[in-house]
Amino acid sequence: MNRTNLTALFQPSSIAVIGASSDKLKPGGRTFRYLAERFGGKLFAVNARGVESERDGVYVSVASLPYAPDLAVIAVPASAVVGEVEACSKKGVKVVVVYTSGFGELGEAGRREQERLAEIAASSGMRILGPNCMGAFNLHMHSYTTFTSTLGHAEWPKAGNIGIASQSGAVASHLLSMVRDAGFGVSCWVATGNEADIDIADCIAYLADDPQTSVIAGYLEGCRDGARLIEALERARVRRKPVIVMKVGRSMEGAAAAASHTGALAGSDEIYQTVFERHGVCRANSYEEFLDLVVACSRGGFPKGRNLGIASISGGAGVMIADYAGEAGLRVPALTESTQARFKEAVPIAGVRNPVDITAKVVTSPELLGLFLDGLLAEVHIDCAVLYLSNMGRNAPLFTRMREAIRSLPARHAGKLIAVVATLPQQARQQLEEDGYLLYEDPLRAVRTLAHLAQIASSFDAPERRPMAASAHRFACQPSGNEWAALQALRAAGIPVVESCLVTSAQDAAAAASRLNGPVALKIASADIAHKSEIGGVMLGVRSPAAAATAFDQLMERVRGAAPAARIDGVLVAPMVAGGVEVILGTKRDPVFGPVVMFGIGGIFVEIFQDVTFRVAPIDNEEAGRMIREIKSFPILAGARGRQAVDLDALASALSTLSHVAAANIDRIDSIEINPFIALPVGGVAVDGLIVAA
Amino acid sequence: MNRTNLTALFQPSSIAVIGASSDKLKPGGRTFRYLAERFGGKLFAVNARGVESERDGVYVSVASLPYAPDLAVIAVPASAVVGEVEACSKKGVKVVVVYTSGFGELGEAGRREQERLAEIAASSGMRILGPNCMGAFNLHMHSYTTFTSTLGHAEWPKAGNIGIASQSGAVASHLLSMVRDAGFGVSCWVATGNEADIDIADCIAYLADDPQTSVIAGYLEGCRDGARLIEALERARVRRKPVIVMKVGRSMEGAAAAASHTGALAGSDEIYQTVFERHGVCRANSYEEFLDLVVACSRGGFPKGRNLGIASISGGAGVMIADYAGEAGLRVPALTESTQARFKEAVPIAGVRNPVDITAKVVTSPELLGLFLDGLLAEVHIDCAVLYLSNMGRNAPLFTRMREAIRSLPARHAGKLIAVVATLPQQARQQLEEDGYLLYEDPLRAVRTLAHLAQIASSFDAPERRPMAASAHRFACQPSGNEWAALQALRAAGIPVVESCLVTSAQDAAAAASRLNGPVALKIASADIAHKSEIGGVMLGVRSPAAAATAFDQLMERVRGAAPAARIDGVLVAPMVAGGVEVILGTKRDPVFGPVVMFGIGGIFVEIFQDVTFRVAPIDNEEAGRMIREIKSFPILAGARGRQAVDLDALASALSTLSHVAAANIDRIDSIEINPFIALPVGGVAVDGLIVAA
Repeated sequence: MNRTNLTALFQPSSIAVIGASSDKLKPGGRTFRYLAERFGGKLFAVNARGVESERDGVYVSVASLPYAPDLAVIAVPASAVVGEVEACSKKGVKVVVVYTSGFGELGEAGRREQERLAEIAASSGMRILGPNCMGAFNLHMHSYTTFTSTLGHAEWPKAGNIGIASQSGAVASHLLSMVRDAGFGVSCWVATGNEADIDIADCIAYLADDPQTSVIAGYLEGCRDGARLIEALERARVRRKPVIVMKVGRSMEGAAAAASHTGALAGSDEIYQTVFERHGVCRANSYEEFLDLVVACSRGGFPKGRNLGIASISGGAGVMIADYAGEAGLRVPALTESTQARFKEAVPIAGVRNPVDITAKVVTSPELLGLFLDGLLAEVHIDCAVLYLSNMGRNAPLFTRMREAIRSLPARHAGKLIAVVATLPQQARQQLEEDGYLLYEDPLRAVRTLAHLAQIASSFDAPERRPMAASAHRFACQPSGNEWAALQALRAAGIPVVESCLVTSAQDAAAAASRLNGPVALKIASADIAHKSEIGGVMLGVRSPAAAATAFDQLMERVRGAAPAARIDGVLVAPMVAGGVEVILGTKRDPVFGPVVMFGIGGIFVEIFQDVTFRVAPIDNEEAGRMIREIKSFPILAGARGRQAVDLDALASALSTLSHVAAANIDRIDSIEINPFIALPVGGVAVDGLIVAA
Repeated sequence: MNRTNLTALFQPSSIAVIGASSDKLKPGGRTFRYLAERFGGKLFAVNARGVESERDGVYVSVASLPYAPDLAVIAVPASAVVGEVEACSKKGVKVVVVYTSGFGELGEAGRREQERLAEIAASSGMRILGPNCMGAFNLHMHSYTTFTSTLGHAEWPKAGNIGIASQSGAVASHLLSMVRDAGFGVSCWVATGNEADIDIADCIAYLADDPQTSVIAGYLEGCRDGARLIEALERARVRRKPVIVMKVGRSMEGAAAAASHTGALAGSDEIYQTVFERHGVCRANSYEEFLDLVVACSRGGFPKGRNLGIASISGGAGVMIADYAGEAGLRVPALTESTQARFKEAVPIAGVRNPVDITAKVVTSPELLGLFLDGLLAEVHIDCAVLYLSNMGRNAPLFTRMREAIRSLPARHAGKLIAVVATLPQQARQQLEEDGYLLYEDPLRAVRTLAHLAQIASSFDAPERRPMAASAHRFACQPSGNEWAALQALRAAGIPVVESCLVTSAQDAAAAASRLNGPVALKIASADIAHKSEIGGVMLGVRSPAAAATAFDQLMERVRGAAPAARIDGVLVAPMVAGGVEVILGTKRDPVFGPVVMFGIGGIFVEIFQDVTFRVAPIDNEEAGRMIREIKSFPILAGARGRQAVDLDALASALSTLSHVAAANIDRIDSIEINPFIALPVGGVAVDGLIVAA
């Protein structure tokens, strides 16, 4: 199979519109109008009943076209779609765009039809966008194979460097409107719909390579293939192209709505979040945040660090901006003494430390703006700045003098991003943007954007993150619901496990306790009992062989009472592990990303504070160390409040090994939970384990 | 002393402008122009050098005015301010507004001058707004005693029902612009500046009583008198007037900036937050959120509950909105089967559960909007709705048909708030607003606003919350750094405390252990050692009298090594308390709100997760019970995962008692920390305590 890439979708030299219509309210009619007016390549209309066209001919069928166009749009009723797609693949069309709905989103029959489309794509190599999609276009090529109404009214968007890839046509249209209204330009735009073939990962990968795109805006509800999404995101990152995404399904209500909307296994949102963070993706939570990030990235400047200078005409607003900075992870360091002294000399009542309060004296002496902002930016430890003007610039003559005072500063301090917060008329905003300022009406949006840009810039500098391969041989492991067998399997795979033995009589229990020579724990071993302590199936700190024998009998009696039907393998006798910190190591299979490894602090607090972290498996020791350090409870492991620190290297090694076990046995093992693993000052041991079969 | 209220500030029948000028850029000139053009009462100009006026006379001094005006504006240099204020108080002026800066914000000399102003106010009963303030106005009275430039340009604001009270003139002006630009009306506006006399609490209290104000928008950086702020907020709440505040100083950076800006003790932000929550105040985190809340409240409708219906032209947007709802605490319940069936009949490919996806069929059949939205709102369990139209209404003929389809619904479903999310031209927005819809461009802002409104509505229904009085006699308590003495003092005040005795020899330690008849804990008793366990000053689970004697000697030796200079009172011997859950009970003095009581889960997790909650003390048992239930770790106390629940009543009683101790001894005690208090299945006991003197 030789699958073509998406070049023909975004850079077609010839297009056929199948279902071209003269009714401009219909998708096929609207598309044909857009293309007829603007597309510079060959344009064929296909309609069995004929249609008017001033372009390159009208044909009754795909088969009758003079040659295979690069791209064909299919805007015909659902019942005719498969036939037209087959005709296109026979003709040798490279990519088809299927607008028609009534497929996967409409139950079993629709799903089967959609699978046929996928099969045609797979067998022929022809790529298919859709079905149930709003199409795609490239503003540099004028290839408008879309029926979005956003192009039809208001001003036509500018060609620019923002690429938009979305699973939803409505969201993609909304983003397009916002970007256009803000005066910024778009390169390529695509709405993938049901994704029978081409998916959001394909589109992001294309945009990562497209020389006319320098920022990628993505909207997704989920994706089928996590590995390909990761590859696409990483492709963009190493090319230093920021990827801004909105992804829904964060809350329970959202996840429920997404499941009902797409009918697909969405994968766990927290794993997406992990992937986004690791590959430098900036996740926007709203259209506004999305727009702010996309247009700021479109301008191409990024702060070199997290130190923010704040200049304001109001002390109160300065405090507000400092608050936002603190919450967004920016710092507001004091200015140097000499700069403070210079500011104090110019305006004795000014606040000069940072935030700088120039005071309302700006009204009578607008040149003060230049003096203060220049001084602030000249500080070597300041990476970016916010200048708060409120509505002061609404007075036109005053605005002219203010602008004059600060006009040269972005050029003089190139490399330091400056955001101006002001409620200004449109023309004044544009003038400041031309001078090189970022413009905002709300200080929160200004600060949040600068903080995200600093984060993006630092993510560009990380080394390339290629997926690791797991050695199936070395980490082979069999699932087992029996705790003892699970621990032995984990030991065999390389994870340190507490010494323990499985006994089936009181005498053997006493003998085992005697051999272990110290206090022991006894635990029922049964694949049928998940939460042993809740039925009294665990006894800790048993201090003698005789007590161990008694404990054995008690345990068996308790279990007979609480779970008479459970199959009992015996009782596990293990030494009590003194000291250390209980942690949880786990793995699961994500429907999108495959094997995933989890780390968290142990005990009841895991459930309450959800202080856990995830990675797509497998990971090396270094990455495992980063996971361990990113939970909030890390100070407990590092030795807070006079406690002894645990052996972080041993812990990281166990976590990394476990991640390899998960990856190497993805076909057999659904999940592994080691709870607890006791992290000790030297080393650490798994004390309880569960391996669930796939 | 007979202090006049603020009626003369907001409803003056006569005004004098001291420092009236014909230069309209100067504060005195701008104010005089505003008043001369619009104020209907008597207006006097006061200027020693004369000034032109077409109004009610020009005078060389306050003394020479024909009678005392209700309100005088002082716009003269700092050196002349005190003289003019004194002249006003002699003349019998009711309120003066001092614009002039150079007082408390400018170091020691300025602070002394400001104190003189406060003394004049206190001794004469004349109220003073400012100094260093932007003044006040009432749009219904046209009493523009302000120099904000926001009134000077663009359209004059409408008179309306939004009251704005701010400590910052710049922020107040920004809010005013935003409210005006959004097309809403303002009643009173005031910027309090340095607050030598009139403060933000006075202004909120005035607005709570003002019949023309129905929503109060406040901005504060801090306040002097927490009790009066609480009284003002509660006054507004019982009158069912929403109070929306922005308060800065939330983050470390913000608090540092605030301290440097105002030079005042700001009080702890978390206590403000507690007060806001308790008194129904809605805290906005940005200008945008502020505007959204204020204008929505200005319209006067509130959802009766938290169930949101979502109707959208796009499945993806529906999922996004459901996500926002989940995160904001709204529910998205399924529609009834019969409604779902009706929707499915109208549009077979529609999503019908909730979110409802009407699909893009709206383009060809706009009447579907009415059918779906009407059906959604007719569901009795739906309290409010979001209708997502994206940019569909930009096509004017389509918009007209869409509007027609839904025009009657707000009236038909009165009592159910409906937010429309759409990017529409200004005129179309206004039309939908006139029809009774709330309008938003961003779905996050729509959902967040509805969630806040539901919260405000439920807070209106809570009973009046009057401050409790503490009985000083009953809860008298002496501070003590000595743990044993502290525990005895707490027991005397009514808090259950572990039986323990202070011993000074190994023999006495053995005797105490023998008397207690069970495992004991030994702890160094010394006011000089704060964290005893960090120097090995605590030994737990000592099992015999002989072991207790040995432990005594070991403890003394350890302390001699680790803290040779510490004064040692002896060693505390106490029984080991078995079982239960460790919690922390504490109190502190807040510089603004006075005595404050704190509750949190014990152990190292308090520090890491900051799972604590606060109240202004004292509180009754019921309120203490609410505190206990609002920490995240509450399930641990309530008996999560098969644990035994603790005695919540006994815990609440101890917490309430402690709050009374803090309130009754606010002059002597700075803070109390009971750490741990062990909450037991029956009862509970304080095990360690510290009482720090004021």
